[in-house]
Amino acid sequence: MLFRQLFDAETSTYTYLVGDPASRQAALIDPVLGQVERDLELLRELDLQLAWALDTHVHADHVTAAGALRERTGCKTVAGERGASCVDVQVRHGDVVQVGAVALRVVETPGHTGDSVSYLADGCAFTGDALMVRACGRTDFQNGDAGQLYDSIHAHLYSLPDDTRVYPGHDYKGRTVTTVGEERRFNARLAGRTREQFVTLMNGLDLPRPRHMDVAVPANLACGKPQALPQG
Amino acid sequence: MLFRQLFDAETSTYTYLVGDPASRQAALIDPVLGQVERDLELLRELDLQLAWALDTHVHADHVTAAGALRERTGCKTVAGERGASCVDVQVRHGDVVQVGAVALRVVETPGHTGDSVSYLADGCAFTGDALMVRACGRTDFQNGDAGQLYDSIHAHLYSLPDDTRVYPGHDYKGRTVTTVGEERRFNARLAGRTREQFVTLMNGLDLPRPRHMDVAVPANLACGKPQALPQG
Repeated sequence: MLFRQLFDAETSTYTYLVGDPASRQAALIDPVLGQVERDLELLRELDLQLAWALDTHVHADHVTAAGALRERTGCKTVAGERGASCVDVQVRHGDVVQVGAVALRVVETPGHTGDSVSYLADGCAFTGDALMVRACGRTDFQNGDAGQLYDSIHAHLYSLPDDTRVYPGHDYKGRTVTTVGEERRFNARLAGRTREQFVTLMNGLDLPRPRHMDVAVPANLACGKPQALPQG
Repeated sequence: MLFRQLFDAETSTYTYLVGDPASRQAALIDPVLGQVERDLELLRELDLQLAWALDTHVHADHVTAAGALRERTGCKTVAGERGASCVDVQVRHGDVVQVGAVALRVVETPGHTGDSVSYLADGCAFTGDALMVRACGRTDFQNGDAGQLYDSIHAHLYSLPDDTRVYPGHDYKGRTVTTVGEERRFNARLAGRTREQFVTLMNGLDLPRPRHMDVAVPANLACGKPQALPQG
């Protein structure tokens, strides 16, 4: 599997490029609108054709590039079935998005938001804001639910092999990857906590409202509103 | 080879953790002083013993954590023989730093600075500021020399297999890795330029002086002066 991790410093968001070296088909997971030119240039240089732009959920902290990439490349856009309805394909638990010979398997992991999905491929889990390095996404907006997040992580991510590489949607300390085994042992919010203790912790976090939420959520529900927002 | 890429957002610096899964020996390449606690925590969690802290050169943009890591862990510090004389081991072209069963091979790649070295291991090149993603380090201070950098890159990095993964010392656009093949084709400063054209380009860049240079260079010549600077 061809693979690149990309970072948007303004929002600390990771975007993932996954490709099939034989067919030259590629997918971008959680692309950021402000990075469209960078990502298209990389696709051109690597001689890859963008087949899919996938979001793990309706983001509150940045605007997705999915719609802009669809306009620019003709790729199809993908999200969970409870996510943005503007996408070409709404996926469910167990669905597979085929990137040439590379299979991206959809795992529903709601809890950070009601629509959150993770994508699995080749020993990697792209977990968005469900499971992060020593952390997890907050659960206090967009139909977030701490108990549901606990269940999603235990049932569908912690059940993966310990050496599964976990690529998160964000990291704020410069860490790029973790593993299922590490998170089971060291996740600062989950390790050693019962479901009840986790719910109490998450419901008491009292976090400030994301700065860009009022712009990002409506834009993302419209696949990034590429017609109205700058693409560069 | 056990491997982690780490990022310092303040200075856009990449640090690399390389380890041997069997012996649990590890090395940190280009560690950043402000990230010592993060990096020590990761080493503890991964059950790794830090054997080496290596610098690719005397940095002008951040303070090395080499001295602080030596104090905290008893690791040995490493630099090129034209680099900081405070290190435990000054290495030359062709030397090998053994991290358990993992061999880090030293390649002298001067030009960005007079002391720059790269480290090679397991199909990866840790190139510091010699070769970066579509870029290279500036050559206008610390005995930098554009012609020498051109020669270093062509003789010792572009001569590696095309699929060698190149891990740079910095990136300012969120790109985490490149390959020798890509840089040969797409490097914005080198591709399609003769040595003479490259020298003309580099000598005409007229870049501003690095903001922290007057602090960073003296500190780094003293391995980070851990006794005088905060370690957190």
